[in-house]
Amino acid sequence: MILSALLTSVGINLGLCFLFFALYSILRKQPGNAGVYAPRLVADGKAQHIWDFNLERLLPSAGWMRMAWRPSEDDLLSNSGLDAVVFMRIFIFSLKVFTFAAVIGIFVLLPVNYMGNQLSLDFTGLQNKTLESFTISNVDDGSNRLWIHFCAVYAFTVFVCCLLYFEHAYISSKRLAYFYSSKPQPQEFTVLVRSIPITSGRSVSDSVDSFFTQYYPSTYLSHCVIRRTSKLKYLINDADKLYGKIVRLRSSNQSEQRFKRAGFMGLFGRRIDLLDQSEKKLEHMEDNVRTERSSVVVKQVRAAFVSFKTRLGAATALHIRQGLNPTEWITERAPHPKDVYWPFFSASFIKRWICSIIVIVAVIVLTILFLIPVVLVQGLTHLDQLEVYFPFLKSILRFSFVSHIVTGYLPSLILQLFLYFMPPIMAMFSSIQGYIALSEIEKSACIKVLWFTIWNIFFANVLSGSALYRVDVLLEPKKIPNLLAVAVPGQATFFIAYVVTSGWTSTALELVQFMPLFCTFIKRRFGGDSQEELKVPSIPYHREIPRILFFGLLGVTYFFLAPLILPFLLVFYCLGYIIYRNQLLNVYAPKFETGGKFWPIVHDSMIFSLVLMHIIAIGIFGLKDLPLASSLTIPLPILTLIFNSYCQRRFMPTFKGYSAESLIKKDRNDRNDPTILSFYEELATAYRDPALVPVRYSTNDESMNSPLLDAPEA
Amino acid sequence: MILSALLTSVGINLGLCFLFFALYSILRKQPGNAGVYAPRLVADGKAQHIWDFNLERLLPSAGWMRMAWRPSEDDLLSNSGLDAVVFMRIFIFSLKVFTFAAVIGIFVLLPVNYMGNQLSLDFTGLQNKTLESFTISNVDDGSNRLWIHFCAVYAFTVFVCCLLYFEHAYISSKRLAYFYSSKPQPQEFTVLVRSIPITSGRSVSDSVDSFFTQYYPSTYLSHCVIRRTSKLKYLINDADKLYGKIVRLRSSNQSEQRFKRAGFMGLFGRRIDLLDQSEKKLEHMEDNVRTERSSVVVKQVRAAFVSFKTRLGAATALHIRQGLNPTEWITERAPHPKDVYWPFFSASFIKRWICSIIVIVAVIVLTILFLIPVVLVQGLTHLDQLEVYFPFLKSILRFSFVSHIVTGYLPSLILQLFLYFMPPIMAMFSSIQGYIALSEIEKSACIKVLWFTIWNIFFANVLSGSALYRVDVLLEPKKIPNLLAVAVPGQATFFIAYVVTSGWTSTALELVQFMPLFCTFIKRRFGGDSQEELKVPSIPYHREIPRILFFGLLGVTYFFLAPLILPFLLVFYCLGYIIYRNQLLNVYAPKFETGGKFWPIVHDSMIFSLVLMHIIAIGIFGLKDLPLASSLTIPLPILTLIFNSYCQRRFMPTFKGYSAESLIKKDRNDRNDPTILSFYEELATAYRDPALVPVRYSTNDESMNSPLLDAPEA
Repeated sequence: MILSALLTSVGINLGLCFLFFALYSILRKQPGNAGVYAPRLVADGKAQHIWDFNLERLLPSAGWMRMAWRPSEDDLLSNSGLDAVVFMRIFIFSLKVFTFAAVIGIFVLLPVNYMGNQLSLDFTGLQNKTLESFTISNVDDGSNRLWIHFCAVYAFTVFVCCLLYFEHAYISSKRLAYFYSSKPQPQEFTVLVRSIPITSGRSVSDSVDSFFTQYYPSTYLSHCVIRRTSKLKYLINDADKLYGKIVRLRSSNQSEQRFKRAGFMGLFGRRIDLLDQSEKKLEHMEDNVRTERSSVVVKQVRAAFVSFKTRLGAATALHIRQGLNPTEWITERAPHPKDVYWPFFSASFIKRWICSIIVIVAVIVLTILFLIPVVLVQGLTHLDQLEVYFPFLKSILRFSFVSHIVTGYLPSLILQLFLYFMPPIMAMFSSIQGYIALSEIEKSACIKVLWFTIWNIFFANVLSGSALYRVDVLLEPKKIPNLLAVAVPGQATFFIAYVVTSGWTSTALELVQFMPLFCTFIKRRFGGDSQEELKVPSIPYHREIPRILFFGLLGVTYFFLAPLILPFLLVFYCLGYIIYRNQLLNVYAPKFETGGKFWPIVHDSMIFSLVLMHIIAIGIFGLKDLPLASSLTIPLPILTLIFNSYCQRRFMPTFKGYSAESLIKKDRNDRNDPTILSFYEELATAYRDPALVPVRYSTNDESMNSPLLDAPEA
Repeated sequence: MILSALLTSVGINLGLCFLFFALYSILRKQPGNAGVYAPRLVADGKAQHIWDFNLERLLPSAGWMRMAWRPSEDDLLSNSGLDAVVFMRIFIFSLKVFTFAAVIGIFVLLPVNYMGNQLSLDFTGLQNKTLESFTISNVDDGSNRLWIHFCAVYAFTVFVCCLLYFEHAYISSKRLAYFYSSKPQPQEFTVLVRSIPITSGRSVSDSVDSFFTQYYPSTYLSHCVIRRTSKLKYLINDADKLYGKIVRLRSSNQSEQRFKRAGFMGLFGRRIDLLDQSEKKLEHMEDNVRTERSSVVVKQVRAAFVSFKTRLGAATALHIRQGLNPTEWITERAPHPKDVYWPFFSASFIKRWICSIIVIVAVIVLTILFLIPVVLVQGLTHLDQLEVYFPFLKSILRFSFVSHIVTGYLPSLILQLFLYFMPPIMAMFSSIQGYIALSEIEKSACIKVLWFTIWNIFFANVLSGSALYRVDVLLEPKKIPNLLAVAVPGQATFFIAYVVTSGWTSTALELVQFMPLFCTFIKRRFGGDSQEELKVPSIPYHREIPRILFFGLLGVTYFFLAPLILPFLLVFYCLGYIIYRNQLLNVYAPKFETGGKFWPIVHDSMIFSLVLMHIIAIGIFGLKDLPLASSLTIPLPILTLIFNSYCQRRFMPTFKGYSAESLIKKDRNDRNDPTILSFYEELATAYRDPALVPVRYSTNDESMNSPLLDAPEA
């Protein structure tokens, strides 16, 4: 790729970004779009007063940027929780890393690369100077200038490791401070117990009660046996929807909405009273709910949430194996009641263990076999081959417009489409694997998606692009550095373009929220329940974090190979910082709070990127006839891994659980707290299944509430 | 090797075994050897009455076998502890496994192998039939008879896995029963705390006290800060020895022992009073001890044993992270006071972590580089090469006697000598690694020695024997099955001979105890302190277990390749069973009690052997033109590993610690125990450093005891 082509691409994408910004700044000022661009404010009732018409509404402005910039980290913490703060720290951390990298890269490495003659020897002539002359490929083989790259690699590694250490320490301290300042949370006092053994004639509830009153007489508070309520939930959900419809029909009182014809599309046949019909249907549903509920009481699963009076009591039950048989009385950290999510919940030890093995295999197979569509899609860019396989396409492909689309946009579009479905698929895998909280599922899916992205975007492009794509290579670890050293620099221009298109434009698109905008538009146009409750979305961490980390990987690996990528990355991170800050404050509401548990993923990804860079450096210095530099680089990945192992021991325990010291301190503070007794009362019912908890409708419809109120005893 | 050669070797070794048996049965009846053959009985005062002279004393008899056979497992348990029982279970387990294997191998596989014609095609003629005709190599390529081997591999794997499961369950239950029936042990109530943070102006002791009284007010009992006492111990040891000498000199009162000349070897010069001289020396030593002791009080290490009133209290402190900073207040299971052994103790987190990394690297390097002497030693068997390198040897090597020694015995002797020093070296590595108990060091050394043995005896012989020895192979995992399939069957005869020589004869040698016998003989002949206290040895598990497990590995891998090895193995296990039973009852006293923690090593070794066998089977079936069988074997190692992973989850927690249920039950039983208060008192001083504990000599020598009694306050 030559410089002008890159500049064109940058220009187009920059234009798109400005277009999206302008679009956003106008659209967000339209009152009808408040539900799209500020659902959090609408839900909190803060968004109404600004919607009076004036000319400003039609002019693009940058006020939102100032508003997104202004709040401090503490404001963000109180507004969106620690997870949002940690998410924004990824941007701050990356900005620090790549500012340092850009200073070295642009002012030191880039001139050195450009002054080399390796590529000019092959091509000769300035007009042919491609982007490659800015990469390490242009430095002469065996040149002593490569020692500058060598030093840069060392300096960069040391800088990143220091930064990682301080960032880890900072987030650990934030996590602790957050814990100390938080109110008592049900999950701190509760553990989930699975594989409860039952003796004949006793219920699970009796079994749990007798076990914990026997062994934890002073701290045991209450328990809540888990029941199979998926069918009941489904029925109640239906009933709720129908009830909502009835309420609307009643309040509107307009005959054209209330009455409808029975025939085709409501156009022919006899006129029927929808309200009447719906109420009859609801009665039938109530019967179903009642029958199902009475059967649910019996459907006890051999698992229960067990609550304790103190955090230390819960921690003791969690950390010490309970039963004699290690496959019984298995305790697990309980998630927050609202965070509980287990479409594939299983109380059996064996079943969960088998599921987990199957999922691991499935994820590996999916990650590796996904390359097949990638390779096929890349095949689409070779028109001549396409014409050989599908001769009937020959006439169509002769039009230059069609062939441009096929070669230019279609492959990446198909790839993006495939990739778009990965995060939900991985989240599903994680939920099958046995995670019981939405937060844990997202965290696990985040890791899966990250590896998936690294393998299928980085390695697939690098290796297939160099026509060296073979899985066999993994079986010959000695050849890997050389292979990467040949392949990776060759893809530098591709990844610079990737940062500009996928990085810049996708992030700007995030701002415009085309999908929700489109949905609201459709809904508003073609009827639909406009009075339906506004759903505040939550940020899909398992989609966003891997994407951001992947750009970090690109930056780290290409830092000394092709420093030209760094300014583009910096722009991406600046954009991301301001845009995601805006979105977190206005659009996304936190769905759960892990207390910063996403940070270790960032740390691991950074360490992996560093080691990958070192391996490439070892290969490159070898290829460039500088074997001494190559050998001297070998200690670097080893030292990095040792550093990582130290960090694991130094910081990871903080992210896994709280220490006895902090738990006991918090417990003591609670003792002086007058509200703790009412908290205990709440705690006893906090983990009751929502399907068994009485549902209260805002109107006083007796006939509706009564059947849903008589929840069975837990 | 032809059959007659094997039979000769078997004959010689069988003869040796019988010789050793006869020798043992005579020697053990001599009163003077009681300290060698029954030190336990002597120490317990049970061994005196049988030593009256009669003719029977000079005749070999098999009475000891009956006596070793008679005691039940419970007798062994009460006599030698659970570790001894688990050690004997290895023999019982192996006997079960290889009886099954031998039935299939001898009656099914051996005839099939012998009926093959693969090797006869190459050699032709019955007189040339070697031992190889009994191996799988003799089965025709592509013959359907190989399916018999295939079925045998599957049946054997299923049998071994079932047996492993039941054995694990059996030993787990034994472990629990042992725990329930045992008296309160100090280590159950105590944890070792390291990396204790100290604020300026406060001692470690204050810091520990304030921390645990603050956070564990109801269960904290006492603590004992660790001090650097290695120098003090050394001084006290010297003083003790000198004191023993003085006591002997006093009691003997014979002038030839008491007086000695000052000159060369006590032959010339003026006569001096040894007693007088020694007493003066002792006084000087006492001064040193006093000075050192006063300085030790200040030399507090930032680590302490902290004791609790209940087992659950200790378990809570152990399992829940204590301090805010994960590198401070690190808790660890405390060993039994007598089991504490830490020549390389360090309280610092970083130092221990670095030591552990260094040791891991050192062990790997040692394990791999040890092959250099092995290869050199194997080179000795090639006389022609030796003559080329060392021409001056030519004349010596011409004598057939010398060349026989060089080729026949010297290589294996040198190898054995090298191997002999491995267990102590590995134990030293383990102690540097940071293990704090003798039992843990032996357990860790056991694993290290096992891997060392497997690599340096099995793989080195297999791979260098086939002239295919290259470490590179490890970097090409795809080739491993084929490589092993070619190399392993070729070494069958070598390993059969190895079982007979190293297995049978070494085990019989264990019975005769040549080394201690020789030492006692020397001591008795050439003076020495005959009244020195009798030291009852303990069984070196880290030497014996790897040896026994290695024979298991040979049996499993050669089961379907060369079933002829199995009868020899069975003989080895029968010999071992009776001999080690005898030794455990008469010779070895338990030095520590891990409660069966050695079993997981046996389990892992067995699983590794099975998987190795599967890999060889995959290679063999491929080589023998039966690709279908080869492919159908692939699921077997995977299923075995899944089985192993299940066992890990099902049984390993039992070996790591006791459950809350059992801890609380034991704690409650203690409450009704009237002796518990006196136990608490003992507990408070149990972990005081022996160097600081008052030393009581049996005689009432006031001048000696007084300086050693005034131990400083803990």
